[in-house]
Amino acid sequence: MQLLKEKILAEGQVIGHDILKVDRFLNHQIDVDFLNLIGQEFYRRFEGRPVTKILTIEASGIAVACITAQYFHTPVVFAKKSQAKNLDKKFYTSQVYSFTREAAYNIFVAKDYINPDDGVLIIDDFLANGRAVRGLIDIVKQAGANLAGVGIVIEKGFQEGGELLRGAGVDVKSLAIIGSMEKGEVVFK
Amino acid sequence: MQLLKEKILAEGQVIGHDILKVDRFLNHQIDVDFLNLIGQEFYRRFEGRPVTKILTIEASGIAVACITAQYFHTPVVFAKKSQAKNLDKKFYTSQVYSFTREAAYNIFVAKDYINPDDGVLIIDDFLANGRAVRGLIDIVKQAGANLAGVGIVIEKGFQEGGELLRGAGVDVKSLAIIGSMEKGEVVFK
Repeated sequence: MQLLKEKILAEGQVIGHDILKVDRFLNHQIDVDFLNLIGQEFYRRFEGRPVTKILTIEASGIAVACITAQYFHTPVVFAKKSQAKNLDKKFYTSQVYSFTREAAYNIFVAKDYINPDDGVLIIDDFLANGRAVRGLIDIVKQAGANLAGVGIVIEKGFQEGGELLRGAGVDVKSLAIIGSMEKGEVVFK
Repeated sequence: MQLLKEKILAEGQVIGHDILKVDRFLNHQIDVDFLNLIGQEFYRRFEGRPVTKILTIEASGIAVACITAQYFHTPVVFAKKSQAKNLDKKFYTSQVYSFTREAAYNIFVAKDYINPDDGVLIIDDFLANGRAVRGLIDIVKQAGANLAGVGIVIEKGFQEGGELLRGAGVDVKSLAIIGSMEKGEVVFK
């Protein structure tokens, strides 16, 4: 998606050799009008799939999932990273390893909100090692639902997530794939 | 907002005497089409105010803030509850006490994203004791920005937050105010 690549080059900031900071428009401050272009592009790429739910993970996936869901006219479900006091006792859970935090955590989705009839489109802001997406796919499988695909805003193509998922037959569509971020410069694949 | 009250009565669930579970449409599964009605209503209530930013707090405020921001054509900024590895070194921070967790936590907003020129509308899903909103107001003040108002989806009118804020001169507009939740029954004010 050309406009996204231009936005990343204009507003993104590379820190070290593997952190891309896009908190000016994607995951701290959110450029909602721009997110609508992203939502429209996801709709274009997954149009015709049987999508009845969009699944993401808190917190930074929520904005892009909600804006995107407007084009599919489906609800969003976001996996929680902690077991809230008032979470249903019946939930799906999966363990996710975070390289950022260097620790594993569990994600939770109440069973009420994903059913075997559902076609689930997973949407997230970033794909790097792919652990979060694999946790979400695990939950879709536990629910006996159909995985309609995985839509990612920015994929770090130099990390293994995308390759592992595509190798396992998952239909991953990333709107921008970064090939390298050496010397502070983003180079797209 | 009549439609919201009906939605709460139809889909909400009272647990004990003070927890209202609305995770069927607001903060776990998100009914995005319904959230658009909420966004339109916030726009109607705050129309004409000088709003340049919508400020909320992760995670459950993000959805309603983003959908609402589409009507104001402003960016959203969400306060983070942890100091991410890649958060700017220059940030505003405020301490918030959580009655749910029985612990205090800090919230963070990068200084880049709220400026003295900004008119900030705070949006959140719930108002109970008001600690989160007071933390957000503190950040608006630290930034030297103008507080345009506070928009809340559901206010627990039997807890002190709304009264304290209004008593301090803050313009709080809540779309549904609950007077009591005795015996599992929601009664609106």
